[in-house]
Amino acid sequence: MTEKKYSVIGKRLPRVDGIIKAKGEAQYTADISLPGLLYGKILRSPYPHARIVSIDTSKAEKVSGVKAIITGRDIPDIKYGFMMAAIPGSGDQYFLAKDKVNYIGDEVAAVAAITEDVAWEALGLIEAEYEELPALLSVEEAMREGAPLIHEAFAGNISAKAKLEFGDVEKGFSESDYIREDRFLMPAVQHCSLEPHVSLASCDSSGNITLWISTQAPFMLKGPIALLLNVPAGNVRIIKPHMGGGFGGKMEVFSLDLCCAMLARKTGNPVLISYTREEEFSSTRRRHPLEVTLKIGVKKDGSIISRTSKTVLDGGAYASLGHGAALLANLWMTLPYKQPNIRFESCRVLTNNIPCGAMRGFVSPQIRLASEVQLDAVAEVLCIDPLELRIKNGLKAGDVTVNGLKISSGSVVDCLKTAAQASKWRQKIKRLPPLHGIGVACSSFECGPSFPMLGPFTASSTIFIKANTDGTVMIISGASDIGQGSDTVLSQIVAEELGIEMEDAKITMPDTDLTPPDSFSSGSRVTFHTGNAARRAAADLKQKLLQAVAGKLEARVEDLEARKRRIYVKGSPDKGILFAEAVAICQMAQGGMALMGSGSYSPEMGHVDMATGYGNYSPAYSFVAVIAEVEVDQETGQVKVEKLTVCDDCGRVINPLGITGQIEGSAAMGLGYTFCEELLVSDGKTLNPSFLDYKIPTALEMTEMENIFIESNDPGGPFGAKESGEGLLAPIAPAIFNAIYDATGIRFKELPLTPEKVLRQLQEMRAS
Amino acid sequence: MTEKKYSVIGKRLPRVDGIIKAKGEAQYTADISLPGLLYGKILRSPYPHARIVSIDTSKAEKVSGVKAIITGRDIPDIKYGFMMAAIPGSGDQYFLAKDKVNYIGDEVAAVAAITEDVAWEALGLIEAEYEELPALLSVEEAMREGAPLIHEAFAGNISAKAKLEFGDVEKGFSESDYIREDRFLMPAVQHCSLEPHVSLASCDSSGNITLWISTQAPFMLKGPIALLLNVPAGNVRIIKPHMGGGFGGKMEVFSLDLCCAMLARKTGNPVLISYTREEEFSSTRRRHPLEVTLKIGVKKDGSIISRTSKTVLDGGAYASLGHGAALLANLWMTLPYKQPNIRFESCRVLTNNIPCGAMRGFVSPQIRLASEVQLDAVAEVLCIDPLELRIKNGLKAGDVTVNGLKISSGSVVDCLKTAAQASKWRQKIKRLPPLHGIGVACSSFECGPSFPMLGPFTASSTIFIKANTDGTVMIISGASDIGQGSDTVLSQIVAEELGIEMEDAKITMPDTDLTPPDSFSSGSRVTFHTGNAARRAAADLKQKLLQAVAGKLEARVEDLEARKRRIYVKGSPDKGILFAEAVAICQMAQGGMALMGSGSYSPEMGHVDMATGYGNYSPAYSFVAVIAEVEVDQETGQVKVEKLTVCDDCGRVINPLGITGQIEGSAAMGLGYTFCEELLVSDGKTLNPSFLDYKIPTALEMTEMENIFIESNDPGGPFGAKESGEGLLAPIAPAIFNAIYDATGIRFKELPLTPEKVLRQLQEMRAS
Repeated sequence: MTEKKYSVIGKRLPRVDGIIKAKGEAQYTADISLPGLLYGKILRSPYPHARIVSIDTSKAEKVSGVKAIITGRDIPDIKYGFMMAAIPGSGDQYFLAKDKVNYIGDEVAAVAAITEDVAWEALGLIEAEYEELPALLSVEEAMREGAPLIHEAFAGNISAKAKLEFGDVEKGFSESDYIREDRFLMPAVQHCSLEPHVSLASCDSSGNITLWISTQAPFMLKGPIALLLNVPAGNVRIIKPHMGGGFGGKMEVFSLDLCCAMLARKTGNPVLISYTREEEFSSTRRRHPLEVTLKIGVKKDGSIISRTSKTVLDGGAYASLGHGAALLANLWMTLPYKQPNIRFESCRVLTNNIPCGAMRGFVSPQIRLASEVQLDAVAEVLCIDPLELRIKNGLKAGDVTVNGLKISSGSVVDCLKTAAQASKWRQKIKRLPPLHGIGVACSSFECGPSFPMLGPFTASSTIFIKANTDGTVMIISGASDIGQGSDTVLSQIVAEELGIEMEDAKITMPDTDLTPPDSFSSGSRVTFHTGNAARRAAADLKQKLLQAVAGKLEARVEDLEARKRRIYVKGSPDKGILFAEAVAICQMAQGGMALMGSGSYSPEMGHVDMATGYGNYSPAYSFVAVIAEVEVDQETGQVKVEKLTVCDDCGRVINPLGITGQIEGSAAMGLGYTFCEELLVSDGKTLNPSFLDYKIPTALEMTEMENIFIESNDPGGPFGAKESGEGLLAPIAPAIFNAIYDATGIRFKELPLTPEKVLRQLQEMRAS
Repeated sequence: MTEKKYSVIGKRLPRVDGIIKAKGEAQYTADISLPGLLYGKILRSPYPHARIVSIDTSKAEKVSGVKAIITGRDIPDIKYGFMMAAIPGSGDQYFLAKDKVNYIGDEVAAVAAITEDVAWEALGLIEAEYEELPALLSVEEAMREGAPLIHEAFAGNISAKAKLEFGDVEKGFSESDYIREDRFLMPAVQHCSLEPHVSLASCDSSGNITLWISTQAPFMLKGPIALLLNVPAGNVRIIKPHMGGGFGGKMEVFSLDLCCAMLARKTGNPVLISYTREEEFSSTRRRHPLEVTLKIGVKKDGSIISRTSKTVLDGGAYASLGHGAALLANLWMTLPYKQPNIRFESCRVLTNNIPCGAMRGFVSPQIRLASEVQLDAVAEVLCIDPLELRIKNGLKAGDVTVNGLKISSGSVVDCLKTAAQASKWRQKIKRLPPLHGIGVACSSFECGPSFPMLGPFTASSTIFIKANTDGTVMIISGASDIGQGSDTVLSQIVAEELGIEMEDAKITMPDTDLTPPDSFSSGSRVTFHTGNAARRAAADLKQKLLQAVAGKLEARVEDLEARKRRIYVKGSPDKGILFAEAVAICQMAQGGMALMGSGSYSPEMGHVDMATGYGNYSPAYSFVAVIAEVEVDQETGQVKVEKLTVCDDCGRVINPLGITGQIEGSAAMGLGYTFCEELLVSDGKTLNPSFLDYKIPTALEMTEMENIFIESNDPGGPFGAKESGEGLLAPIAPAIFNAIYDATGIRFKELPLTPEKVLRQLQEMRAS
């Protein structure tokens, strides 16, 4: 547990924005009201693949209350792609189709009107004529020799591929005692952020464009949006208001951002576009459906010797974050076990389906399911306790994986041992009554990437802290709290370092004009990266304060301590002054100038060799073990998860309440992925684009959870903190799959595990 | 003229907010729309002095759409006063009267409702019962022995007085060749800001209160508002949106600020209060009406030897900024001439009239009229050209006045000589046809006060500048552009110093949470004080950039120059890099941390002795000479001002276009003060509280102007800039008065100079 030396760190503190969110006072993008606000709607393609013959907006323009309509003719001839800065020519998406549409949902035209109803009415009157093209609705069709190209930039309809090898895989297999190969299938699922994609744009006659966007990456969006609008980057300002979730689905520029800005520029009025739930499901991004084939070679004692993976991802109609998906399909394989020889091949294929992008865990839930279920099968064959097999191979601090990931703290072994004890694993595995089972799965996750995401000259995070003479501070931060609670974590870090109370620290919304840049909120980077920047900025401010008051307190700087809104001589709390007073004295010492602390953080860079793929992709790695206990109903095929024991090595726990919320949320998402979530598509058309037809677990479907933290306290993390909440999504499904195997002897390899599928297998088993 | 070495300074540049203001896109406080916005209105006292017997709000509360009503019972028992921090116990105003009302217009209750109409309706249904008290409607009544006290804090109904003497006044008079005494009367006038007082408050359930206020002093308001709302200062955030003028009338906390906040807290909804024009005239602040008696002793050669002034100001019902008025009634007397012996007495009296506060020039227009008209009379008696008399006594750089004002640059003598030449003074004075006349008057004004207005530990101004890798910068400034154009001036200063273009620099609105503190926008301090802070912040940023790129450019830092969006080796413009590139390199050099420059400015302090009044009140002083040419219509008494020649020593002209606008605006205000403006009051009731009845000059009433700048370039000013636009208001009226004397031989000593008054004097003269 956290030492008593901390006042704010380690406490179960409510979120800084908790009350205003609970009371409905927090302003989300759609809550911002501007005078003259217009509402935008987007016309979408009804065909998976078609050439646009003509678009006639004349009838729609006559609808009373319609202020502007734009089509592909109105937008600049620049194709957007997430990787366009890094890979010139990789842009593949017009935000309003110019020539052809590539999936059902592709954007064709946009309307701004005085109400949403008027905008919908106008959409219905736009006459778009199409000439259908052959639709490539599966990976197989898209990869077929001679298949038409969806985008000319991507030969063979391959938007990204990767092939990496470390060690000598074939030699490894030749030395193995046991080899097996398994194939797994994962469906497409959607993020289901409670807040949809929303964008609000306001232009002024000086050429400035302000966008309020529900986004995870305001600073990454600014450049592309300026480019797409053909204005200098300095004219574009992006503000991220309160947000109701992102989960990786709000990392890019989307059509609504550009349409809002263009419609606002055309009308002179601010324009808001808020996607419907149907648009969320069918026209944004989704988790990659994929097929993965894993081969493993082990020694009799369970040591993993060699592994290969072959992954084919259905990327849908656009490249999106597909490069990352192809890479990460590999990367996650080398964690959390020692695997001396490993080879990956991944191939992301373009189809005329909904485009796929990043989603919480970014390919790790898919890969981890395959890997952890296969390990269980290996243990079964070798007659080794599957938990022991994992302990045998588990990575720990000091290890460096075969592809160069440096484990700087913690161990999956500790997580496994602790989870085993808490769940009474040894008394239960293979010892539970029929149809009851227990299973284990592990994972390890990054703490933000080690790549310079805002360009080589810009830190991953910068934080400025303005101190006020009333004793409060303003944390000027560009980090996006997208609902994960990072504003609370950053406020705690600053309050702890400065020795003030939580309520003394306010924090800004990200605003590309006002706040320093922060890469994005994804890949579990904010606590680690921005947290470090925040702690450094606070330390910088504190150092200035201590230097300014040391004389008055007749002490050396290093003998001073900041705590409880005071700065005092260590061990003599009476010999001190108020924090507010110290700010005043310090300002006085610098000629009255307002006091600012600054700090930044960039992980050690330049250590990933892009040719070989070798290198340390993240400054630290978390570990997690999940033990699931299930009961299978043989009459209905329904699986009841009786308990999830989660042991999370997340480094220092900054806020146990917040982290528990993240873990429970992740577990709920994992349960949905395991049992019920799947975006059903037929002929390119989404069949269940609503919460009526696409079921996600609610609080009622939640299971009992025991969450145990191992605070390995990473030497590089702020106060030792690492990732939590994202990494543990991945092992939820395999832990349950493995528990079902323990309960039934059936080894499932396909998601989602609906009662129908379970029942069918139970019936087949009984029949055989 | 400005040297060619400057790229941005000295250019006739449009305002940075010019286009959006011209197009109606700039958001003023009343334009901000928040969800659930309610509209507030304030019930005011119909009596000049009365005890409140009871207030019954029950009927009003029943009006549909009324959300809350507050009265004096609902507000904390804390009296506000502008000087409450400096002079404990000097608070005299409840923002909703608790016990008694002190003028017609005093605030009694406030309503929040869904529309303004509903709020008005509810106000009409509040039943307030009063017991009338004897009303003190004149200075004489208020000063009478045994008069009832309006506020217990102020004995004898004197809210402020001052008596200062420098040199030996009586000895001076005894050595004078000629002595005269004159008495002058000045009426009350109003600021007539086009935007009225507007306040918008929003409270959240976390206890944070955000106020958008049309104010000149957001940072000075924060503390008192927190105190009056009984919350920690850190919970109060004040933002100043675009503003349509202040002119000294928006320096304080007003009832609407507190009522908005309390109604917002009570209802949970944001509340907007926008004063009507009638409220502006009758219930805010006004320029002090006063009576001043001046005595002067001179040598035959025109040397001023001794002077005294006795000023009695009708302060109205509250202290407001009356301490400043009593002091400044003295201070302005020692400028712009050498006056070796001088004594001031001033007394600000409380009455049951509208309270008086600061207004453009703050007592200088009143005192300057008296002084400059008296000087003209002296010149007449001594048979000296009145312009020569002024030249003889004029202050110039290096002089220190008898009360310690240090003239660091310029001279009124240069202004006089230049104006004389431009207007062909010598050919015209006493030589024009009958009823045509020419007159001169001078002034000198401060460049912001040398007092620590935000407390002793806080600089007068701090500026932070964030540099972006796209080559733009964000000026993070707490300075309030209240319409005077200071955002443009600060942007020019920063752009010049950094060698970038105007459009590369954006500037914030003042926001007590986000921006560093800036004292206020009044006393002509922003260009000088904040301008210095801005230049220093830009220089700090530039220094970091030069240091970072010197190596790459193979040059020493001191050999580098920043201009035209580039940093290059002096004399070798090709040997350089883009500014944007330099930002990136500099960020890289500091580990990627976002780049921030900071600078602050505080005038040399501690030099004003509060006991004797001796000291330098401002870091610099501007000079101005105004020559007016008039034609008097003897049939109507109408005076036509044919031309105003203004010669302004304003130091470096940052923006000739902006400064001309300020000069023309000030001249228009001076014309209104001279001829038509007067708040007419009868039994405490304002008789002309509308623009129908209170006439101010429009563009059609403007006269021809010739504006000449003398750029004396103060060593302490940013690029040498000093004050302009406020100081020259004061000499407008006396120059016209003196020209009328030249035209008619009539010496007027009372404002406003309506045609009726002129005609009456012309007729009396003809009759005599």
